[in-house]
Amino acid sequence: MTKPSISKGTRDFLPEDVAKREYVFGTIKNVFKKYAFQPIETPSIEKLSTLTGKYGDEGDQLMFKVLSRGEKFKKAVNEIKSVDSISESLFSEEALRYDLTVPFARYIVQHQNELTFPFKRFQIQPVWRADRPQKGRYREFFQCDADVVGSNSLLFEVELIQIISEVLNELKLDDFVIQINNRKILAAIVQISGEEKNFTLITTIIDKLDKIGPEKVIAELQNSQIGYKCVKLFNEIFDLSASNSSLIDWLELNLKDSEIGQNGIKEVKSIFNYLKHLNLSSNCKLNLTLARGLNYYTGSIIEVKLKDSNIGSIVGGGRYDELTSIFGLKDVSGVGISFGADRICDVLNERNLFPASVSSNVDLLLVTLDDADVNALKLASYFRENNVSTTVYPSGAKLKKQIKYANLNNIPYVVFLSKESSMEGDLELKNMHTGEQTFMNKKEILKKIQN
Amino acid sequence: MTKPSISKGTRDFLPEDVAKREYVFGTIKNVFKKYAFQPIETPSIEKLSTLTGKYGDEGDQLMFKVLSRGEKFKKAVNEIKSVDSISESLFSEEALRYDLTVPFARYIVQHQNELTFPFKRFQIQPVWRADRPQKGRYREFFQCDADVVGSNSLLFEVELIQIISEVLNELKLDDFVIQINNRKILAAIVQISGEEKNFTLITTIIDKLDKIGPEKVIAELQNSQIGYKCVKLFNEIFDLSASNSSLIDWLELNLKDSEIGQNGIKEVKSIFNYLKHLNLSSNCKLNLTLARGLNYYTGSIIEVKLKDSNIGSIVGGGRYDELTSIFGLKDVSGVGISFGADRICDVLNERNLFPASVSSNVDLLLVTLDDADVNALKLASYFRENNVSTTVYPSGAKLKKQIKYANLNNIPYVVFLSKESSMEGDLELKNMHTGEQTFMNKKEILKKIQN
Repeated sequence: MTKPSISKGTRDFLPEDVAKREYVFGTIKNVFKKYAFQPIETPSIEKLSTLTGKYGDEGDQLMFKVLSRGEKFKKAVNEIKSVDSISESLFSEEALRYDLTVPFARYIVQHQNELTFPFKRFQIQPVWRADRPQKGRYREFFQCDADVVGSNSLLFEVELIQIISEVLNELKLDDFVIQINNRKILAAIVQISGEEKNFTLITTIIDKLDKIGPEKVIAELQNSQIGYKCVKLFNEIFDLSASNSSLIDWLELNLKDSEIGQNGIKEVKSIFNYLKHLNLSSNCKLNLTLARGLNYYTGSIIEVKLKDSNIGSIVGGGRYDELTSIFGLKDVSGVGISFGADRICDVLNERNLFPASVSSNVDLLLVTLDDADVNALKLASYFRENNVSTTVYPSGAKLKKQIKYANLNNIPYVVFLSKESSMEGDLELKNMHTGEQTFMNKKEILKKIQN
Repeated sequence: MTKPSISKGTRDFLPEDVAKREYVFGTIKNVFKKYAFQPIETPSIEKLSTLTGKYGDEGDQLMFKVLSRGEKFKKAVNEIKSVDSISESLFSEEALRYDLTVPFARYIVQHQNELTFPFKRFQIQPVWRADRPQKGRYREFFQCDADVVGSNSLLFEVELIQIISEVLNELKLDDFVIQINNRKILAAIVQISGEEKNFTLITTIIDKLDKIGPEKVIAELQNSQIGYKCVKLFNEIFDLSASNSSLIDWLELNLKDSEIGQNGIKEVKSIFNYLKHLNLSSNCKLNLTLARGLNYYTGSIIEVKLKDSNIGSIVGGGRYDELTSIFGLKDVSGVGISFGADRICDVLNERNLFPASVSSNVDLLLVTLDDADVNALKLASYFRENNVSTTVYPSGAKLKKQIKYANLNNIPYVVFLSKESSMEGDLELKNMHTGEQTFMNKKEILKKIQN
C-alpha cells in the first residue's frame, strides 16, 4: 500500500490553519459588509464557452477542464478520425472557475432583471489554476472580490481603496503600498506614438518591470519592433522621480494632445484628491508603469504590494467598461478588487501576526477517571447550552494521557469526574495555564470559564 | 451572441440566497463548535487513486474527473493503440471530491502524527456528483460533516445524535425522525440465513424499502436468488409493530445464536438508554430496515427524515471501523454524520422558516441630491466606523430612483444629502418602513439606526 498523498499544488488544512484563514476571510468580509457589498456565489464548474478566451492563451492552458462522462465521452471517441486530430477540447465542455470576475460578468448578464444597479457584490470562493506551484502560488486558492457594476462614478474606486486600507490596517500589514494607474494613460502613450495595434504586447512587456528591471524592458520593447517614440516615452517614465506631482506634470505635458490621455489624467487627479481628503494618500502611489495582465481593464488599475515582502501582489483590481459585453450586455461599467487571501495568510504567518485567540477552539475537557457515563454527558450539555465548547474524554484512560490530550489541543480548563462525582455538588477544576486546581460547583465553573 | 448559461445541475446564488445559506451553515457550525469539533479543510481536487473504488461503480461513474493537460494529455494520446481502447481513465489522474469522508480518511492517515485522538473534526465544503439533477439534488452541493476518529465509544454516537437534534430544533424543523440501526444486526440476519456472500446485494435491495414498498422488496430478494430463510426474516421485520421494544424482543429471540448480532443489539440498547436519559428518545426510532448505501459502515447507522416532507434524507451517518485501512492505517474506528445543507435550505424555503433578519444586509443609504462628494464619503465613513453597513448613491439621480433603490434593496434608513448639507448639523433621516422623516445630527441618526 503506497502512502496516500494529495494533488500537486493543493493543500490540506489543519484546525489551526482553518482558524487562521477564517480570521483573514472574516476580516475582509466584515469590511465588505460595512461598505454595503452583498454576497453572491457562482458554481465551481462553468461551461467552457463562458470561460475560454477570456484569460488569454495562458489562461486557456492553465484551466482545469472537466472530462466528459459516459455517452458524451463515447460520442467524442467516435468522432476521432485520426490520432493527430485529438485535442483537449474534444473531451471537455466544462472547466473549473479560473477567477471570480468572468463568472460575475456572466452572472450580471443572466440575472440583470433581478438586480438593482449600481450593484455592489462581494464573493469569496476558491479558483483553480494549473500553474507551476511556488511560494505564495497554489493550484487551488481563494479570491475575495468586491465589485460595483452599473456606475462609472470614481467614488467606487475610492471606496475600494478605502476597503483595501481598512482591511490591511486591521491585519496590521502596515507597510502596504496601493499603486494606482489608469489604462487610458497607457492607451494615450501608445496612441500618440502610433503603436495602437501593439497595445497588448506593450502592456505585457511593461508589466515585467518589477521582475526584469527597466533596461531589459526597454531592450524587449526594441526587440519587439516597437517604434522609437514609444520606447523613448517609457524610458522617460522610468527615469521620472517618484512624486505623484512630477508624474502628473510629465503627463500633462506629453499627453496634452490626446483626448483619452486627458481623461485618464483627470480621473487619476480626481481619485488622488478624494484620497487626500480622506487621509489615505500616504499609502497610495501613482505608478505609470503599472499595466496589469488582464486585458479587460479600461480605466483605473490598482495593485497592492508590501514594502518589506517579496510575496508579490496581494490585492489587484481595476475598472472595466466592456466586460459584460462579451456576454451581450453593453454599456455596463464596473470596477473591482480582488484580495489574494492565501498570500495574505502566508505573510501573516511569516510575520507572526495572527492574534493568539485564533488558535484555541475548545474551552473545557471533562476528564473521566471511570468510563464516561450519562452524567458526564449531562454535565457537558450544561456547559454547551451556555456556549462553552466542551468535550468529554470517552473512556477512563490514564489520567496522564487525558491531561496530555488537553495540552495538545490547547484546552484551557479541565474538570475531573469519577463514578462518585455528584454533578450538583463541588467538582475539581484545573486551570491548564496556571496549574491551579480548585473545587467549585458547575455554576461557579461556568462563571470562571466565561470570564 | 447566445445568452450565457450555467452548467446543468449547478446554481447561482443571489445575495438573499447566500444570506439564507449562511444562516443554515452558521447554525450547524455553532453546534459543531459547542461539541468541540474542530474545523479542517481538504482540497477540491484529489488523486483518482484516492477516490476510485470507494463509492461503488455508480460513484466512479458519477465522479467529475479532471482532464489531463499539456504534456500528460499528449502522452495519453500517444499511448492510444486503437480507438476501441480509449477509456476515460486514459485522460485523467484527478477528480473532484465526491464526499467528505474518503478525503477525511486519507487526511487522517497522512496527518496521523499531527493529530491527537480521539480527533473530532468538522468540515463544511462542496462536493460534486454528476447525478441526474432533480428536486433537492444538485451536481454541486455542500456537505456539513462531523466525525470522531480513534475511539469506539458509543458516547460519540450519542453526541452526534445530540448535535442533530440541536441543529434541527434550532432551525425549527421539529418533525424530524432520527432513524437508527446497526450494521451488525443486518450482518447477523444475513449470516444466520447463510447469505453472507450476498450482504451488499441484500442491503442494496433493503435500502429501497421507502421507495418501492415491502412487497416489491421481497419480490426483488426472491428474484435475486436470496434464500428462503433470509427472505422470511425480512418479511417478519416488515410486519413488526413499530415500537422499539417489540423490535428488540424480536432481535433477542431471532439473533440469540449470533455473536455479532448480540453485539449489535447491545450497542443499540445502550444508545437508546443514553437517549432516554437525555430526553431525546421521542424523535429517535430503531429501524431494522435501514441499511444505507455506503459499504464502509460497520456499526451504527443513522438517517434523518422529516415526517411532513418528501425531500428525502437530510442527515446521514454511521460508524466505520475500516475506513482508514484502505489507506494503510488499521484499527482506527470512526463515527460521523453529514448534514445535507442544500436540502435543508430547500425545506426552510418551502416552509418559510428563515428569520426575517436574514434578508436585509444594508442599513443605510445616503441619497445624494447633487453628485456625491467627499463630504458624503466622510459621512459614510462615520457610520461604517460604527459598524453600520452604509452605501452612497453615487450620482445625483432623480430622488424617486434613489428611493426605489433603497426599497428594492430592503434598506431600512435613508439620509438626504445635498451640496448645502452640513455634515455636523442636522440632516434629514427617513425610516423606510414607517415613512417617518425627521431632522437630527449624525450622532442621533447613528443611535436611531443602532437601536
